[in-house]
Amino acid sequence: MSRPTSGTNTYRGRYSEPVPTSNLTTEEDDFPEFELFDEGADSEATPRAYPPDGASLVVQNVDMCQQINKPNHFTSAYDIQNLVVRRGLEFLVRVTFSRPLTPGDDFQLEFLIGANPSPSKGSLVVVTFGSRGGGSWSGQILETQGESLVLGITPTADAIVGKFRTYVAIVTDSGLQRTKRDASTDMYLLFNAWCPEDAVFLPNDAERREYVLNDSGVIYQGSVGAVSQRSWMYGQFERGILDACIYILDASQMPIYNRGNAIKVVRKGSAMINSQDDNGVLVGNWSDDYSMGKAPTSWTGSVKILLQYVNTGVPVCFGQCWVFAGVFNTFLRCLGIPARVITNFSSAHDNTGNLKTDLIFKPDGTPDRRHTRDSIWNYHCWNEVFMVRPDLPPGLGGWQVVDSTPQETSDGHFRCGPASVTAIKEGLLCHPFDSGFVFAEVNSDVIFLKRDRYGTLTPFRVDKTHVGQAVYTKAVGGTSPLDITHNYKYPEGSAEDSRTASRAEEYGCERDHSELSDAQLSVTISAGQCLLGQDLNLIVDFQNQGELTRTVHAHLAGSVIFYTGITANHFKDQDFSVTVPAYQMERVVLKTTAQEYMSHLGSQLCLHFVVTGQADDQSVSAIKVIDLQTPSLTLTVSGQPQVQQEMFVTVSFTNPFSFPLQNAYLAMEGAGLMNVRTRYYSAIDPQASISWMESFVPRLDGPRRLVAVMDCNNLRQVSGVADVTISA
Amino acid sequence: MSRPTSGTNTYRGRYSEPVPTSNLTTEEDDFPEFELFDEGADSEATPRAYPPDGASLVVQNVDMCQQINKPNHFTSAYDIQNLVVRRGLEFLVRVTFSRPLTPGDDFQLEFLIGANPSPSKGSLVVVTFGSRGGGSWSGQILETQGESLVLGITPTADAIVGKFRTYVAIVTDSGLQRTKRDASTDMYLLFNAWCPEDAVFLPNDAERREYVLNDSGVIYQGSVGAVSQRSWMYGQFERGILDACIYILDASQMPIYNRGNAIKVVRKGSAMINSQDDNGVLVGNWSDDYSMGKAPTSWTGSVKILLQYVNTGVPVCFGQCWVFAGVFNTFLRCLGIPARVITNFSSAHDNTGNLKTDLIFKPDGTPDRRHTRDSIWNYHCWNEVFMVRPDLPPGLGGWQVVDSTPQETSDGHFRCGPASVTAIKEGLLCHPFDSGFVFAEVNSDVIFLKRDRYGTLTPFRVDKTHVGQAVYTKAVGGTSPLDITHNYKYPEGSAEDSRTASRAEEYGCERDHSELSDAQLSVTISAGQCLLGQDLNLIVDFQNQGELTRTVHAHLAGSVIFYTGITANHFKDQDFSVTVPAYQMERVVLKTTAQEYMSHLGSQLCLHFVVTGQADDQSVSAIKVIDLQTPSLTLTVSGQPQVQQEMFVTVSFTNPFSFPLQNAYLAMEGAGLMNVRTRYYSAIDPQASISWMESFVPRLDGPRRLVAVMDCNNLRQVSGVADVTISA
Repeated sequence: MSRPTSGTNTYRGRYSEPVPTSNLTTEEDDFPEFELFDEGADSEATPRAYPPDGASLVVQNVDMCQQINKPNHFTSAYDIQNLVVRRGLEFLVRVTFSRPLTPGDDFQLEFLIGANPSPSKGSLVVVTFGSRGGGSWSGQILETQGESLVLGITPTADAIVGKFRTYVAIVTDSGLQRTKRDASTDMYLLFNAWCPEDAVFLPNDAERREYVLNDSGVIYQGSVGAVSQRSWMYGQFERGILDACIYILDASQMPIYNRGNAIKVVRKGSAMINSQDDNGVLVGNWSDDYSMGKAPTSWTGSVKILLQYVNTGVPVCFGQCWVFAGVFNTFLRCLGIPARVITNFSSAHDNTGNLKTDLIFKPDGTPDRRHTRDSIWNYHCWNEVFMVRPDLPPGLGGWQVVDSTPQETSDGHFRCGPASVTAIKEGLLCHPFDSGFVFAEVNSDVIFLKRDRYGTLTPFRVDKTHVGQAVYTKAVGGTSPLDITHNYKYPEGSAEDSRTASRAEEYGCERDHSELSDAQLSVTISAGQCLLGQDLNLIVDFQNQGELTRTVHAHLAGSVIFYTGITANHFKDQDFSVTVPAYQMERVVLKTTAQEYMSHLGSQLCLHFVVTGQADDQSVSAIKVIDLQTPSLTLTVSGQPQVQQEMFVTVSFTNPFSFPLQNAYLAMEGAGLMNVRTRYYSAIDPQASISWMESFVPRLDGPRRLVAVMDCNNLRQVSGVADVTISA
Repeated sequence: MSRPTSGTNTYRGRYSEPVPTSNLTTEEDDFPEFELFDEGADSEATPRAYPPDGASLVVQNVDMCQQINKPNHFTSAYDIQNLVVRRGLEFLVRVTFSRPLTPGDDFQLEFLIGANPSPSKGSLVVVTFGSRGGGSWSGQILETQGESLVLGITPTADAIVGKFRTYVAIVTDSGLQRTKRDASTDMYLLFNAWCPEDAVFLPNDAERREYVLNDSGVIYQGSVGAVSQRSWMYGQFERGILDACIYILDASQMPIYNRGNAIKVVRKGSAMINSQDDNGVLVGNWSDDYSMGKAPTSWTGSVKILLQYVNTGVPVCFGQCWVFAGVFNTFLRCLGIPARVITNFSSAHDNTGNLKTDLIFKPDGTPDRRHTRDSIWNYHCWNEVFMVRPDLPPGLGGWQVVDSTPQETSDGHFRCGPASVTAIKEGLLCHPFDSGFVFAEVNSDVIFLKRDRYGTLTPFRVDKTHVGQAVYTKAVGGTSPLDITHNYKYPEGSAEDSRTASRAEEYGCERDHSELSDAQLSVTISAGQCLLGQDLNLIVDFQNQGELTRTVHAHLAGSVIFYTGITANHFKDQDFSVTVPAYQMERVVLKTTAQEYMSHLGSQLCLHFVVTGQADDQSVSAIKVIDLQTPSLTLTVSGQPQVQQEMFVTVSFTNPFSFPLQNAYLAMEGAGLMNVRTRYYSAIDPQASISWMESFVPRLDGPRRLVAVMDCNNLRQVSGVADVTISA
């Protein structure tokens, strides 16, 4: 009976049937329309199709009761023809027969998913409505109106998630008489954050509305001192997105049998959102050359990316961390898993997975970029999902880190998590998956090493607070950041913090234990907000806590960096000296003009300054990262804010710079309002203005957002938003 | 300074240098031969090559002292030009200078691995021999003889494993004067089971000699009642094998930085020994059609497979579980990791990873092969490695399961482990890697389900003892099996066993809790040894523990199966009845003739019988798997058993069957004795004999084994061995 497919015929002797891995593309001939009862050993030889006798019961209609089910299951927003429901909660089906039922009549419903559906694997579920026992989903007759029955069906809270085929089978004396295959009765079954028995149950209603139902959001970027916001359209309810999410699981060849397991689904998702290993959704690119695709900064949301992936079957170019996190968030919320995007500021990226980020300096104290391998990202975005962890000891459920940005050190494949946030906070790094890796991202020590003339390294400073300075996510119901650093870490220096650190070390996370003499001299750098195209001042404070006056021979090095901390261009070196009396502080203000940095920016907007100083036998150093602020787009909305009424939005912008903006590509969208629109300007001259109007017809009500992005060859990261509340 | 390679240039903004992933193919220009001291910020602009002045010290010769180092490091057996040593243990290098050293002279040794070596990552190690501080490896001058120095160098016990390049650098006033790149001073560094600080330390010397140094072994097959042996040549010391193992890590693109971590190396190895995902070593094939490669049964050992993989860069066709385990064992022992091959008899293979293996039966009690998805392998082979587990809580080090047979349920990729054997025994399934999967292989319950006419399943029997009946490995120093079932499981029914089961369930391993009424009727099947081509008798015992006489209507079904439990051909159905008085046993002997099964065998040798019976409301069933025994090859050795003396071996065989053996392919090898030789006979007629003689010259002394295999289209699994002790 084996039906080997192309890839699996060397496995004939391993599987009785190929393991089904596709949900969307399965053959249509599940059953014979009439299935003779199969009681004997030789049934294979018996003819299987058999005409039913004329007097028997016949099914006239099957109604999936969308108007009733959708609001009950919080699935009205999905722009899709078929019923979408959440598991563990009853939904209704109205079946109309050819005549009223009599006590001798018997029938059952059958729900099938994937090829070769099997009752022992939950991919073929028989639902009965009388005393006769059925499968694991329960059924009851709620109402009888003549020949029409309203049936209540409750899938188990651990049912397979995906697209099921629905059949009604009438029991006759000799066999089962089934309805024909009817795609309009196909039904999507999702994870259910409202169901206490579901692994993704989230008790708080406001949180469910945010983390499952909110189809737009804000992702934080920049640095701790200068946090910026990027609006992102998740769009999980837009047309084609639910099928796209199932397509992703199909493309991953994840067995249908495993798709009810939230842990396996999110782990697989973290692998599939990036293209490495598996031709997943998005190609990572940190090169500054995006000519073979679209710049990561040019996307307004996930919808266009996911639809392009489904339509072409080819990974989409290009993403960086917030794009991976945004698309992954759509995938998760669309399937019903509570999810949010997280930003970790000063995120360590270590190649060996220990707790040391090594920054190497030359004998004269300047950065040795050639020998430095580790980097600290200005920020890094990942996702959290909310779920129980039955595979771990008690107390480690709740929020879990998953990360789809391709990170080569995560267990050798490009995926990460789910890693329990509580386990990270407690230093319990002995559990799956990848908790040690995430722990290092928020807890690494920064080791400043001096490389001597012979190539030997000696540590001269350890900064235990720089990495993981703050962990942010969007607040429930608003757009302000919620600081959740305390979810990941105990306060620096607390007893609990020490306990976590020593536990992490027990589990093999190598820490630095260099014995460094107490430094009497220190330096810090600060700066105000810095606008792109304007001069900036660095305030450098030298502190002398010793009893001798010190003369510091200092050096300022300025570079343009990627947000990953890697140097793009070096543009400035400046020597200076300062004498600091005993127990005093001495301030130096160092000016950098726009002229100095502008020509070195490329498309980056991030400046990196290092001050190093030598005073007798003492070395000091400090680092300051400055994100240059860009101008905004202005969005103006007009018209009656009501579902199905035409409205208008105008995007306007004036070039404030003294140079023209070239190849300006604008994109705009709003989940539930309009799909992606784009506009192109070959150049926007200095001081010139543009104005772009689009009309749209809102599909969904409630508070909604439009987001627009402008991406030029010589200026990225210009965006704007407009909020509007649509009435029903 | 970034040197992007083809695959990584979209990562320019992520890495200061590409992460090195290749050990064997790196550029030769590590250093300028003269490196000017680099003290300043602008050093990039300074010329780097500079002629040394004529009077200075020069290195004349670097001797890696193979004759002394190899015996000390237990690496004499490696058939390789270069020095091979184990980490954490001192090795000697003799450096001869142009003149005796004076107190002002200074020099250092430098060991480099991979591209872009970095002192902070352990891939560039500076070793100093005076008061000046160096890198992490310690150095001392052991002996000075004029201009010649014997240096002792001790790599750290966690050093990177692989092939290092060696340089000697003399310190001059203005810079470092280095030796030229010299491939003959390249040095292989291995894991060290003899070093207490190494993660793979194994205290017992006899075990180290078996699990690291023994280059041949025995793999157990068949079934618990009829265990068979297959000799396997690991050949980890044969020419080209050490480079092949490093090539595998290179092909996996495993970062050089991670190659000192035993956990990461064995996990990566488990992924790379199979070809899925990563174009690894071996293609799995359970189809019975091996025409596109070599049959899994035709290999004599790992050497030919590994050399073919390295030479072609393409996965080798074909393997089944014992081939994967044999090749993986070679990889592990070759790199110095203590390893052994394990056989688990009646190994569960479940598609959903729970603890239920569902066998489905039709309403009349016969097996429903169409609806049964799970299978129980007659046996399954994996490997164990011995190592500490710093990433886990205390007590979980020691033997760890790793499995390179492609198993699709292991975390979505084709790899498995390391999973702590102790954690499996204790049910502590909350730790990495894949312990739940291995737990199910040895602990699944077999659920017998009846599928009713409506498609609904009802359990009627649960067998909690069938799976994981015995776990065997070769005993240290012998060829008899060592039963290590107790390492994996507490005795069935003990208090500890219950504790393990309930822990496993807490960690999400779903068990069966069907409430089944106590069966009063039971059936068992037994059989003696069965030779291929002869009739066999099944002894079927029906036991009635009730107070009523029962008449059982019974059915015997006979099939040929793959060793994976999957049916190849069904050949027999027989109905019979038996009346069993109250509290009595009734025996039925059922004969199966050779004629009945021979034409259905194909190349399988495994018969599967199911007896099912119905008596009133009671169902009984029993399963018996019979491995048909094949004839053996006879190996006769002659000549003086001494290293470098010619010897002879004769392989002889007589066809005992009434049919000709077609396309007989013979292969023979012996690690340390001779490499693989093959011979082909187009046919061996009934009762005809063959005799094949080969000469060989032993390379290594000690007790050694020759193994020969014969593989025909219509008869597989014929083999023979000869043991010989070679004197030095």
